[in-house]
Amino acid sequence: MSLTSVSDKEVDIVIGAFRSDLTSFMEEWRPIFSRFHLIIVKDPDLKELKLAEGFDVRVYTEADIVKVVGPSKIALFSGYSCRYFGYLVSDKKYIISIDDDCTPAKTNNGDLVDIVAGHINNLKTPATPFFFNTLYDPYQKGSDFVRGYPFSLRSGVPCAISCGLWLNVADYDAPTQALKPDLKNTRYVDAVLTVPSKAMMPMSGINIAFDRELVGAVVMPALKLVKEGKVRWETMEDIWCGLVVKVVCDHLQLGVKSGIPYVWRNEKGSAVESLRKEWEGVKLMEEVVPFFETLKLSPEAVTAEDCVMEVAAAVKERLGSSNAVFSGAAETMVEWGSFCSNKHLIDV
Amino acid sequence: MSLTSVSDKEVDIVIGAFRSDLTSFMEEWRPIFSRFHLIIVKDPDLKELKLAEGFDVRVYTEADIVKVVGPSKIALFSGYSCRYFGYLVSDKKYIISIDDDCTPAKTNNGDLVDIVAGHINNLKTPATPFFFNTLYDPYQKGSDFVRGYPFSLRSGVPCAISCGLWLNVADYDAPTQALKPDLKNTRYVDAVLTVPSKAMMPMSGINIAFDRELVGAVVMPALKLVKEGKVRWETMEDIWCGLVVKVVCDHLQLGVKSGIPYVWRNEKGSAVESLRKEWEGVKLMEEVVPFFETLKLSPEAVTAEDCVMEVAAAVKERLGSSNAVFSGAAETMVEWGSFCSNKHLIDV
Repeated sequence: MSLTSVSDKEVDIVIGAFRSDLTSFMEEWRPIFSRFHLIIVKDPDLKELKLAEGFDVRVYTEADIVKVVGPSKIALFSGYSCRYFGYLVSDKKYIISIDDDCTPAKTNNGDLVDIVAGHINNLKTPATPFFFNTLYDPYQKGSDFVRGYPFSLRSGVPCAISCGLWLNVADYDAPTQALKPDLKNTRYVDAVLTVPSKAMMPMSGINIAFDRELVGAVVMPALKLVKEGKVRWETMEDIWCGLVVKVVCDHLQLGVKSGIPYVWRNEKGSAVESLRKEWEGVKLMEEVVPFFETLKLSPEAVTAEDCVMEVAAAVKERLGSSNAVFSGAAETMVEWGSFCSNKHLIDV
Repeated sequence: MSLTSVSDKEVDIVIGAFRSDLTSFMEEWRPIFSRFHLIIVKDPDLKELKLAEGFDVRVYTEADIVKVVGPSKIALFSGYSCRYFGYLVSDKKYIISIDDDCTPAKTNNGDLVDIVAGHINNLKTPATPFFFNTLYDPYQKGSDFVRGYPFSLRSGVPCAISCGLWLNVADYDAPTQALKPDLKNTRYVDAVLTVPSKAMMPMSGINIAFDRELVGAVVMPALKLVKEGKVRWETMEDIWCGLVVKVVCDHLQLGVKSGIPYVWRNEKGSAVESLRKEWEGVKLMEEVVPFFETLKLSPEAVTAEDCVMEVAAAVKERLGSSNAVFSGAAETMVEWGSFCSNKHLIDV
């Protein structure tokens, strides 16, 4: 898919800023991002912010966050989670978001990967969650449905989320990084696929895009660990969000794709140092996964908003008593709709 | 995985012969196959068979088939299905089988793909059907489990089937080939993944390997179309077999992998000519897929043999009245066990 078929009117690039100097980051991305509107959300903990010139950019700060969610909820948008405020204030159809330690990747042929074209292509072509296609996404150029694929399922369903991947530093957790410090992801796998219905997955927020009109109501930083830091392996907000999104997509018959486009990810933080911390997230997953795998939404839940409310009620009932982070997550999921309604409070 | 770690005592290469001259095919594969035992099954319709010299090979003919299944069942092993007789008579742990119109593929780096090493590596490392790993098979060299993957699921389950892929002529059905005669598969996707539990898939017999001890009782040519021919797009036996195998693997907590290793596939037959035929298989899939998607095996089914009997009973009950091919399939599934017991009737 060529870049020209992507309208800049339908895309917001959202960047969470938790480094004070984004100039080199923005320069690296200039060939790909320059014609799109950038939403940059400043981590409330960050003092200064330096940006490159020549972009169509709007920066949102702590003051904006307070206007929308009030001063008591500002911690929801600290660290990696600040980007979710950008998702909240966007009014475009598609949102693309990458971590600020990523630079453009190259294909096996040495071509620069255009993540905007790649994500938008994934989102604009149907997803096929109800039968696995062995040649991956049949809607990618050069592929198709293989022999035996039921014709009645070939029109697919709308794709709601496109989860991109990472070259160089992959998205491993702290124990894996610490045990295998030299493990780099060097394999460029030239494929994207629909994650089958009912299969759960660890959605990463490092390089992601979604259709805000379809699932914007679900993409939020509901579950945050108390000691959550500023390196990816300590975060859990995207993993939790991904489980909710996947359950909602399965229920609403929407698709989730995973694979290309890639970004190049650079080192950040010391994995060995992170070993001193508690891995609360690792422990939580053992409780969280069986919950989501058995969660059934009711036929009355016909919109993403309905689904979020049902998931929140189930989280509160079935997980709420075991850990305060779960009751906190349920609360945020209930409040998110009202945050969305408040976004007009920000000066345009 | 290097070839040296594969013992030739545990592998049979099974080739169905429905061309009278396999010499060039065998020469192409000599670097990879020469140290393994080859089981070549001659299509009963084939008169002559010419082979390359210097292989450890045993050829099975119509006379052998009659000894094991009787003269009335010989049609079960005609055309592509003759290879299943090789699966029946093998006593090795692993079986690898490819179509006789395939030659070795090359990787993106130009290296020859060793399909034996690739398949055995897939089969000897665990599969992970209960949670999707976004970096594909975490047991492949250079990969691992990504952040958020539950630790309790990281040991995986035994892998029962490895479904390889095809470069050049892909495994499309007749309508797709006829509509897009120039559509070739040129994309070498350097990945293999576990197809998630509960997701159905179109298993192709072109390039496949399996653990005979785990699922040998399930891999059979149960469903054969009346007008089934000698080109892949007219066959259905592998697709049906794949659906049964997947349901059985899901029930027994075994894994099915799909992806590398690739073979290079050459043109065979005229897609346009095939348009004159009825596509009975295409129509059957619309009935077959909902059946398998809703099929539940009982907790009493604890072996592959048990599972096959339960699937056969359900096929007979729920599909048997709609089409004679289904009652025929159920019958073969019931008889397969006795065929297996008869294999001692062949002279060693």
